[in-house]
Amino acid sequence: MEGGYQVFHGLDDDKMKEACGVFGIYLPDAEPGSNEAARTTFYGLYALQHRGQESAGIASSNGNDIELHKGMGLVSEVINSKVIDQLPGQMAIGHVRYPNGEDSHPLNTQPLVFRYLGGMVALAHNGNLVNAVELRKKLAREGSIFQTTADTEILANLMARHCQERLENAVTRVMSEIKGGYAVVMMTENQLVGFRDPRGIRPLCLGRINDGYILASESCALNTVGAEFIRDVNPGEIIIIGSEGLKSYQVREAGVGAHCIFEYIYFARPDSTIDGINVNRARRAMGRQLARESRVDADIVIAVPDSGTSAALGYAEESGILFEEGLMKNRYVGRTFIQPTQQMRDLAVRLKLNPVAEVVKGKRVIMVDDSIVRGTTSKMIVNVLKQAGAAEVHMMVASPPTSYACYYGIDTSRSGELIAARLDVEGIRQFIGADSLHYISVEGMFSVFDAGEEGFCAACFNGEYPILVEGEVMDTCSTE
Amino acid sequence: MEGGYQVFHGLDDDKMKEACGVFGIYLPDAEPGSNEAARTTFYGLYALQHRGQESAGIASSNGNDIELHKGMGLVSEVINSKVIDQLPGQMAIGHVRYPNGEDSHPLNTQPLVFRYLGGMVALAHNGNLVNAVELRKKLAREGSIFQTTADTEILANLMARHCQERLENAVTRVMSEIKGGYAVVMMTENQLVGFRDPRGIRPLCLGRINDGYILASESCALNTVGAEFIRDVNPGEIIIIGSEGLKSYQVREAGVGAHCIFEYIYFARPDSTIDGINVNRARRAMGRQLARESRVDADIVIAVPDSGTSAALGYAEESGILFEEGLMKNRYVGRTFIQPTQQMRDLAVRLKLNPVAEVVKGKRVIMVDDSIVRGTTSKMIVNVLKQAGAAEVHMMVASPPTSYACYYGIDTSRSGELIAARLDVEGIRQFIGADSLHYISVEGMFSVFDAGEEGFCAACFNGEYPILVEGEVMDTCSTE
Amino acid sequence: MEGGYQVFHGLDDDKMKEACGVFGIYLPDAEPGSNEAARTTFYGLYALQHRGQESAGIASSNGNDIELHKGMGLVSEVINSKVIDQLPGQMAIGHVRYPNGEDSHPLNTQPLVFRYLGGMVALAHNGNLVNAVELRKKLAREGSIFQTTADTEILANLMARHCQERLENAVTRVMSEIKGGYAVVMMTENQLVGFRDPRGIRPLCLGRINDGYILASESCALNTVGAEFIRDVNPGEIIIIGSEGLKSYQVREAGVGAHCIFEYIYFARPDSTIDGINVNRARRAMGRQLARESRVDADIVIAVPDSGTSAALGYAEESGILFEEGLMKNRYVGRTFIQPTQQMRDLAVRLKLNPVAEVVKGKRVIMVDDSIVRGTTSKMIVNVLKQAGAAEVHMMVASPPTSYACYYGIDTSRSGELIAARLDVEGIRQFIGADSLHYISVEGMFSVFDAGEEGFCAACFNGEYPILVEGEVMDTCSTE
Amino acid sequence: MEGGYQVFHGLDDDKMKEACGVFGIYLPDAEPGSNEAARTTFYGLYALQHRGQESAGIASSNGNDIELHKGMGLVSEVINSKVIDQLPGQMAIGHVRYPNGEDSHPLNTQPLVFRYLGGMVALAHNGNLVNAVELRKKLAREGSIFQTTADTEILANLMARHCQERLENAVTRVMSEIKGGYAVVMMTENQLVGFRDPRGIRPLCLGRINDGYILASESCALNTVGAEFIRDVNPGEIIIIGSEGLKSYQVREAGVGAHCIFEYIYFARPDSTIDGINVNRARRAMGRQLARESRVDADIVIAVPDSGTSAALGYAEESGILFEEGLMKNRYVGRTFIQPTQQMRDLAVRLKLNPVAEVVKGKRVIMVDDSIVRGTTSKMIVNVLKQAGAAEVHMMVASPPTSYACYYGIDTSRSGELIAARLDVEGIRQFIGADSLHYISVEGMFSVFDAGEEGFCAACFNGEYPILVEGEVMDTCSTE
Repeated sequence: MEGGYQVFHGLDDDKMKEACGVFGIYLPDAEPGSNEAARTTFYGLYALQHRGQESAGIASSNGNDIELHKGMGLVSEVINSKVIDQLPGQMAIGHVRYPNGEDSHPLNTQPLVFRYLGGMVALAHNGNLVNAVELRKKLAREGSIFQTTADTEILANLMARHCQERLENAVTRVMSEIKGGYAVVMMTENQLVGFRDPRGIRPLCLGRINDGYILASESCALNTVGAEFIRDVNPGEIIIIGSEGLKSYQVREAGVGAHCIFEYIYFARPDSTIDGINVNRARRAMGRQLARESRVDADIVIAVPDSGTSAALGYAEESGILFEEGLMKNRYVGRTFIQPTQQMRDLAVRLKLNPVAEVVKGKRVIMVDDSIVRGTTSKMIVNVLKQAGAAEVHMMVASPPTSYACYYGIDTSRSGELIAARLDVEGIRQFIGADSLHYISVEGMFSVFDAGEEGFCAACFNGEYPILVEGEVMDTCSTE
Repeated sequence: MEGGYQVFHGLDDDKMKEACGVFGIYLPDAEPGSNEAARTTFYGLYALQHRGQESAGIASSNGNDIELHKGMGLVSEVINSKVIDQLPGQMAIGHVRYPNGEDSHPLNTQPLVFRYLGGMVALAHNGNLVNAVELRKKLAREGSIFQTTADTEILANLMARHCQERLENAVTRVMSEIKGGYAVVMMTENQLVGFRDPRGIRPLCLGRINDGYILASESCALNTVGAEFIRDVNPGEIIIIGSEGLKSYQVREAGVGAHCIFEYIYFARPDSTIDGINVNRARRAMGRQLARESRVDADIVIAVPDSGTSAALGYAEESGILFEEGLMKNRYVGRTFIQPTQQMRDLAVRLKLNPVAEVVKGKRVIMVDDSIVRGTTSKMIVNVLKQAGAAEVHMMVASPPTSYACYYGIDTSRSGELIAARLDVEGIRQFIGADSLHYISVEGMFSVFDAGEEGFCAACFNGEYPILVEGEVMDTCSTE
Repeated sequence: MEGGYQVFHGLDDDKMKEACGVFGIYLPDAEPGSNEAARTTFYGLYALQHRGQESAGIASSNGNDIELHKGMGLVSEVINSKVIDQLPGQMAIGHVRYPNGEDSHPLNTQPLVFRYLGGMVALAHNGNLVNAVELRKKLAREGSIFQTTADTEILANLMARHCQERLENAVTRVMSEIKGGYAVVMMTENQLVGFRDPRGIRPLCLGRINDGYILASESCALNTVGAEFIRDVNPGEIIIIGSEGLKSYQVREAGVGAHCIFEYIYFARPDSTIDGINVNRARRAMGRQLARESRVDADIVIAVPDSGTSAALGYAEESGILFEEGLMKNRYVGRTFIQPTQQMRDLAVRLKLNPVAEVVKGKRVIMVDDSIVRGTTSKMIVNVLKQAGAAEVHMMVASPPTSYACYYGIDTSRSGELIAARLDVEGIRQFIGADSLHYISVEGMFSVFDAGEEGFCAACFNGEYPILVEGEVMDTCSTE
Repeated sequence: MEGGYQVFHGLDDDKMKEACGVFGIYLPDAEPGSNEAARTTFYGLYALQHRGQESAGIASSNGNDIELHKGMGLVSEVINSKVIDQLPGQMAIGHVRYPNGEDSHPLNTQPLVFRYLGGMVALAHNGNLVNAVELRKKLAREGSIFQTTADTEILANLMARHCQERLENAVTRVMSEIKGGYAVVMMTENQLVGFRDPRGIRPLCLGRINDGYILASESCALNTVGAEFIRDVNPGEIIIIGSEGLKSYQVREAGVGAHCIFEYIYFARPDSTIDGINVNRARRAMGRQLARESRVDADIVIAVPDSGTSAALGYAEESGILFEEGLMKNRYVGRTFIQPTQQMRDLAVRLKLNPVAEVVKGKRVIMVDDSIVRGTTSKMIVNVLKQAGAAEVHMMVASPPTSYACYYGIDTSRSGELIAARLDVEGIRQFIGADSLHYISVEGMFSVFDAGEEGFCAACFNGEYPILVEGEVMDTCSTE
């Protein structure tokens, strides 16, 4: 769109980016020719839309053939009734992908469907392989060609190399070759497969619907389609669902869990429960902990909606300071937008987040957000609050400073832009123009979880990488 | 869209519908060839998008000619950079219109631009004329033809009949002929005009931007574009802005104000202040009043987001019961959607509003919403909350039962569907399946405002119509 | 389309432009709820597509209500099955409009549907009123407003002024007020009306289909839908078709016919017969006459396809020189196109008309076209033929030099660009670079028709205007 | 497209289907960052559009990287200025593909771009491999995966297996492994490659533009972009163009030529010259030969436009019977169409080909077409001609009966539908309802060419397959 830009991105760029969402379903009782599996996948992806808005796709199997439809856009833009009717079968998998202006390419959309000696396979994955470059070279040396730049194609080629073996053995072999964070949903003509990296970095859960099964990135997708949550897939576990029911293979001794802590802070939907912890509960608890750590004298607590709301409510609850709605979010944000001129600096933020002057005027305001990435949006918000008459603006961040790049499926390709990697807290405070700035401590963050520090990957905060990254690494998660 | 339906509408249908939003701007210091007026109108409409999502349009004047662009869809879909560049001039007016599947027609989009003996005029209006049928007949008898079914065309024809007179006199004459609720923004080649019905039913406010002026349905549009709020246009006032500055004509003794109280309850944006009252403050106060009137023993207060949130926070504040986020709203709702099958009854609601089981399980829940129209959505929400484990669900409604049709600009075309017109509170409670149901009282609602009962139209609640409606009346507001 | 331009127009701009095509149908035996009338109108417009590619529209009446759908684009782009299903009834009228980059405006699309005291009317017309400005002023003085710049709206307002009278009287009154060339198809809720200007400038014919009737600009539309041609509508005749059958009113003594001779030269389809003369036969006869008038020594005769083919065949037949296909037309021309750079001068023509070198190499070529407007395309074609090796290129034009503007429905808005208005034949020859250039003589052209000079308007060739044009006249036919 | 069908296909389905068109360009003097190579490829594909209307694509190389854009639709729909600007570099290749409702899939669009150990390669091909199934199995056994069903992916994998070798050797190796008819245009980051099967079944020619080179399926593409025709690529020849200029490798003794004779009959554009024979000349000569073989007493000769026109003119020339335009082709045929009802049987044909009654009425008509596939369209045309009053209709076919499937790049997937495989000439005559039916003889067809029978593949007519087909063969040409 010439001359336009994406206001959504303009603000959301100042957030970490989740790679993807995956969904898979097996419905043994559905009519083979029905579209029920694909239709339910559509609804599931719809519930996972927050994990990726760039592209969407669904593949279905009728037992003999795999059909595929995918494209750029939201689930509801890519998939319609007519498409669903062309995706028959008792099994389906689906995928949503995050927006990334530069590396986005229609070829990299998922699921990837391929034929190999053993038949057809459809693959969808969330995550990032840290040894992708090395694997790609090795495969190319053996004659493989690559039509995309996605990790998914590496997985496909590795699968094909082990195609003579039983499915569980082939997957086991693949898992022994790949390193990184990944949650994969895969489908042959008649089996649905899910597997998760040995540290459980990326989420994947299992549900039951009637006599069938669902695999999904988040439990909110299970709830939405009316499925019952069974359990999370274990780190290092392979699940194979077919005519003989569900089988589990714990392919390798699961390592100590290293669940991505950022899922709780920002990525996942508040109504999801991941690895035993409800996201809304975690966020609210972080708000309370933040209040315990950083109390300032103020009249009201406000949130940067929507991602800061749960923590702000927790902060208000713990501090006893009244929660108010000080920023109004415009819900009708289109995909493209006409660029404001230079004279209209604050327009970009006010179009999306307008202060409620009557609420903030003359008030000492505590503003809670879930995280700060580049700081530019926070700076604009603080500014418009002050213009609206806020006497003081104290910013509270419900996560620690983000100083380290992620290699396991989060887009920190712009990690040079992580403000906490360049400035200390006081420097950031000056940049955003707040009267005070407080982050939750790393310990405080961990204290929210029963397991404490155990079981999480918090490398973006503390630089402690659970999987060693050697040599050249691709920056982004889904498109290398 | 074959086979699909609009899930957004599926749920939002259970809300009253605002007619429209209007915006006008006069920028004497802009370059005559610049697109600044149209561009600012675009941003203003963007901020008023909640008042109408069906169609959008902008007309601009370069002093000699009026250019127009309008179409079906959101502002960001209808207007892009290329369009803006074809809308030069120092003046512009714009319009957004609400979605209405049946009566919607491209021909009824606004602004309406017409030529008459005196030149060109662009017109955009929000509201409804109660004597439209009569006026239309009278005009037709005098030879007028009508290409649309919109009131706007009646206004245009009436204007043309008085075209030999001075502009203020012509508008005065028109206002003496029309009856109803209306807020009109109009533009000749070189003057911007705004006028509001003598009871001030529909909102219209005035702002200043640099050396220019803005007229807008709500103050949030002024804030968004960086304009300063001056004041509301008075009931019965005509404002004419041109090269000689701003002139005001109080064309008739303004009647006792009869501001639409539903603007505060649901239509307007929380960050707007209308006729001296901030919307967020009013909603929160209604929540508090509701708590004073109807206290029930419960563990948590939750809102039906987004429209019930302010009142829910007020209820929680007053009652001391903890506010929790018990329903998660899916923010990625597309325009169309694949229809869930009969077996998936609750899917429609869960796709948009999923309960957070961890929050509501085992809890006695107070659920606050702003209003109930047909009750079908409330029924589904209560049901999914119970499925998610809520021990009790007590529904609190921050407005009184809506039993009467509106003739002044709100779509109650489906007033047969007003559940409160058919059932008493206990009947409604049984229908929605809540453990208890409480509405705020009419008196309680009025008590929230300093002026009390004076100054508002609450006819949809109490049947006291400020303007008499005689004979045949068209049902809907924007398309008769 | 940024950076692109319309190659189609790039070449076709060098042709006169027909205003429009009209179609109307009355099917008393169709089910009232069926879409048969609208569907047949779709096919009829499809056959008339050559008369206008800018916009298309259909209105249908179910006896009580008139429904309308119109839009920018080809018939097959604007109208689809879904649209047809929303156009029920036993009657329908349709319209196609020609492309004109500058004056084109969605508001000017037809049919125009309006309500007046007597009910609803749909109007579609082909032609141009020479007293449009005057009529518009008169109507405006009486209070009419105009939402478009089309003559159609003038007709609508005039109709409304006479609405108390019987339909035939109202139309008679309207015809007494308007001057110019016009063929109008009109529809009330239950009557289909056609009328043609008193000189019969623009074509309109009548056909029968089952027990119903059709009115159409050209007989090819009747053939296509399987209707039987009855006769042409007479100059000055009104035809009204309703439940009582067909009635004809010869409202005024028909003047001496002044049928537009350019319909035979270029506008109409070769398979149409207009006012008793088949277009293919006329074109072929003009080619033969041209051969009789201007014989040159040559090896082959080629056509500029497609409009020059019939005349070229006639020329070859008469001269005995072999007809060859020397220019290949690309049939896959899209709406938009990427602009060739300056270095690729001849590309624009070769993309659409590529010479067949094997046919023309070393040959003395007679190239026949139907007409020359600006001469720029002829110049490019001569050039590419010479590049392809043609020894000589003699251009034969099957119409006389076009030196005068048309005021009766043909777009000569760019009449300043009529090369024959600026240069004599030798000057034009030099401009286009042909070895010789011959036009058919005016007398020769007339000799082709039995009636001779009588009965035609050839004002664009001889300046003899059948209807006096006084005062200010709008340039283009369909958008004033 | 709900309810609509493709009228274009409705008629064109009754023609053989060409697989594809290819184009490649190397412009050493262009600025590396310019879009000149891609832009010229766009124009070239535009000229080759008749060889495939389903999808189009262009890949360009800037020396380091290969960019790709492709999609479903016509060249002018898929490629626009914005796309061209994203395809920089001195080299580009392009592809158009034919429409095939069933097997069409976005994944099978070309060019195919892949990365392998040696870098990046873009591939576009026209033709069909008869040992595709076997090759695919062999590659799969070695671990290859396939994401499409196109032969192109087999070629890509074979190339990758030989990537350590010099480019000419690698291509030679690939050519020794594949069997069938093919013309391939390929591009590495810095070399343009073309190669043609050893029998020269599918066409490919070489041209020069400024200091650069072009490879194209037909010479019309060279003419259109202003390039000079050098020569046809020889059967079994590899051409490699790079910084060291053009090199030719005759990889294997070229077999006796087996040029597809159907290119001359129907596929290629009349202004193309293929393997030394101009298409227009060949078609016209076939018409003359047909007249020599099958003279009938008749009044006029007409063509089924456009493909039958050249032969009809030849027939008229030889027989001395007057050529007339008896069928008018509608040039404004959209992609989709509203399906005529059963009652409107002949509508489908008349919408596209309407008889000119004035020309055929009372006449004994010879109707010439290039070929008959299923016969259904011929039957409809004969019928509408008789309805229009033709006294007799004698059908002349400028090719022999098509009785055998093609395995070298032509879609005879519906070969069961070849009417000549089921019925003899008299049976076909009865089916189509003509008064007589004559095909050119196989010998007569060959007599048109200097080389006679030598050098052509006419397997579809005589079943003499130049390349043995063993075992399982895929039916269609471009999607196996």
